[in-house]
Amino acid sequence: MTSLVRGRPATVKDVARHAGVSASTVSNVLHGRSSVADEIRARVEAAIADVGYVPSAAGRLLRSGTSEVIQLALPDIRSPYYSALAHTVIQRARDLGMTVVIEETDGAVEQEQRVASSHPHRGVGGTLICPMSLTSDDLAELRPELPTVLLGEHTQGDAFDQVFIDSRAAARDVAAHLVGRGRRRFAFVGTERGEGTGPGALRLAGVRDVLRAEGLDLPDAAVLGTPDFGRETGISVGEGLPVGEDGFDAVVCATDELAVGVLHALARRGVDVPRDVAVTGWDDAPESRFVTPSLTTVAHDLDDLAAAALGFVTARRADPARRPGRHVSPHRLVVRDSTRAV
Amino acid sequence: MTSLVRGRPATVKDVARHAGVSASTVSNVLHGRSSVADEIRARVEAAIADVGYVPSAAGRLLRSGTSEVIQLALPDIRSPYYSALAHTVIQRARDLGMTVVIEETDGAVEQEQRVASSHPHRGVGGTLICPMSLTSDDLAELRPELPTVLLGEHTQGDAFDQVFIDSRAAARDVAAHLVGRGRRRFAFVGTERGEGTGPGALRLAGVRDVLRAEGLDLPDAAVLGTPDFGRETGISVGEGLPVGEDGFDAVVCATDELAVGVLHALARRGVDVPRDVAVTGWDDAPESRFVTPSLTTVAHDLDDLAAAALGFVTARRADPARRPGRHVSPHRLVVRDSTRAV
Repeated sequence: MTSLVRGRPATVKDVARHAGVSASTVSNVLHGRSSVADEIRARVEAAIADVGYVPSAAGRLLRSGTSEVIQLALPDIRSPYYSALAHTVIQRARDLGMTVVIEETDGAVEQEQRVASSHPHRGVGGTLICPMSLTSDDLAELRPELPTVLLGEHTQGDAFDQVFIDSRAAARDVAAHLVGRGRRRFAFVGTERGEGTGPGALRLAGVRDVLRAEGLDLPDAAVLGTPDFGRETGISVGEGLPVGEDGFDAVVCATDELAVGVLHALARRGVDVPRDVAVTGWDDAPESRFVTPSLTTVAHDLDDLAAAALGFVTARRADPARRPGRHVSPHRLVVRDSTRAV
Repeated sequence: MTSLVRGRPATVKDVARHAGVSASTVSNVLHGRSSVADEIRARVEAAIADVGYVPSAAGRLLRSGTSEVIQLALPDIRSPYYSALAHTVIQRARDLGMTVVIEETDGAVEQEQRVASSHPHRGVGGTLICPMSLTSDDLAELRPELPTVLLGEHTQGDAFDQVFIDSRAAARDVAAHLVGRGRRRFAFVGTERGEGTGPGALRLAGVRDVLRAEGLDLPDAAVLGTPDFGRETGISVGEGLPVGEDGFDAVVCATDELAVGVLHALARRGVDVPRDVAVTGWDDAPESRFVTPSLTTVAHDLDDLAAAALGFVTARRADPARRPGRHVSPHRLVVRDSTRAV
């Protein structure tokens, strides 16, 4: 049981204040370092008891050297969605006494093979991978030596534990919101390379579901494939996009980064968002709240996603023959100014 | 020597195409997996020779299981600057056959002590830490067991290898640019907690250097301390900031995130940037190019910074008694629309 100082668990700082020593000295005592004078050590130990300080389980694991490593493989840590995902996995893993190695794959098949088929050092206990190029069959052929969990919708199959959101349902939420705000002339920005079974394709399918039910058209010319999902690409798209009375009145982007680029290009052209055209993104990246206008987007529940992924690693280690599981993580439409009623 | 396919090094994909097999099969051969039929293996090996494929040094190290781990400790991976730093460290480390564990400290003294004083698992060969709370003396008292490099200007001392930019000089560049554009009434946003020896204080000092030389004033009321350096805080500041004819005509922010928040709040108020007031950030975060108006900022040379930091780790392992080094990494003012001449 953790004692409380003013309603919160006691910390090293509380111990230090109580003992009249520095936090570093407390840390030295906790780590059993020999440099601490006996008198100081006794004083610190008394203070630990007095304030009821309990080292965290994670801290104990770390000090005992038994902490485990989880490998998280993603395309690029600089992408706001992936850095938010990494943050949540790191936090959740720390709660479990684990640390996280980040591997960047750039979405390239060779890098994805590398992380899926090798464990980079001793002590790695599992791999979470966001594949962009490898299919589930490719991965199965690689036979990863470690418990491996697929994150995201890029690979559907039944050989691995998987965690993802229902992208098609989320896209239906986006489209229904826009139709409800009177939008009729849709464009869709951002479909991936390859056979089109990834999130871009799923998101497009969800938009089509709604438009079809409303008797609205989404001609091929309104579906803009992009070489990547970044801001620069969004700018290129936004520079040429016909919008307003003679063009589109709603632009659904497959990522926030694309949408931020589109908004930037439209602002330079003097287009008023949302009056002339509504714009939506995907991922609820932090900047989606701070661009002007703020961006309507799809939010993930990263805590749920990270907990499910790490849970799959633990379960598979307990039972390697376990049937692969699928966890559909919740999503939520976040409505902001870029789709305001006009 | 690496052979070339159409002017670039041959890849696993080239081998696969040449052998008429999947990339996964090539990978299985490279990893010595027994599942590959002898005939296929022979065909792949012939293709490897034909296209001149050479597995990278990093790949060989990884497969041999001897790869090393570098611990990178930073406040929050979601911050654009830290995710860009992590990206560069991961890329550079991979070139050296190393992988990177990310530890988040939230800038809290206990977390910083934790990562500085323990190595979380076997195989960790060094620590790069961006301290926010611990001083250099605190760190010295912790006596890290691993080669430890301090990144950033938060702790100045001579007990550790350090890599940082000259924040004061960079701030002089920012202020001189603004004065050159006719700005006279400066505000400075973002100074840190504590004794004020960190980057916020150094950046403020650089601005003061220039203003003093120009005979301009920076009254205490124009220096806005902030509880953190994030976008929400920037919005709070921007909502109340007196700007324009009766207020400030230049706002120097200690981070891009603060500046992005300030820009957002000013846009909502109908303030025209840069006509009514110029705004600058710091770090050249990707979003600084995509906000409206795009943001003038200070860019780091992250490749230089990461290479220097990893170089210090390597050098210290070769010679643990080595005198600690200091590497000043270059910076560069990036001028964009938020300080355009008006």
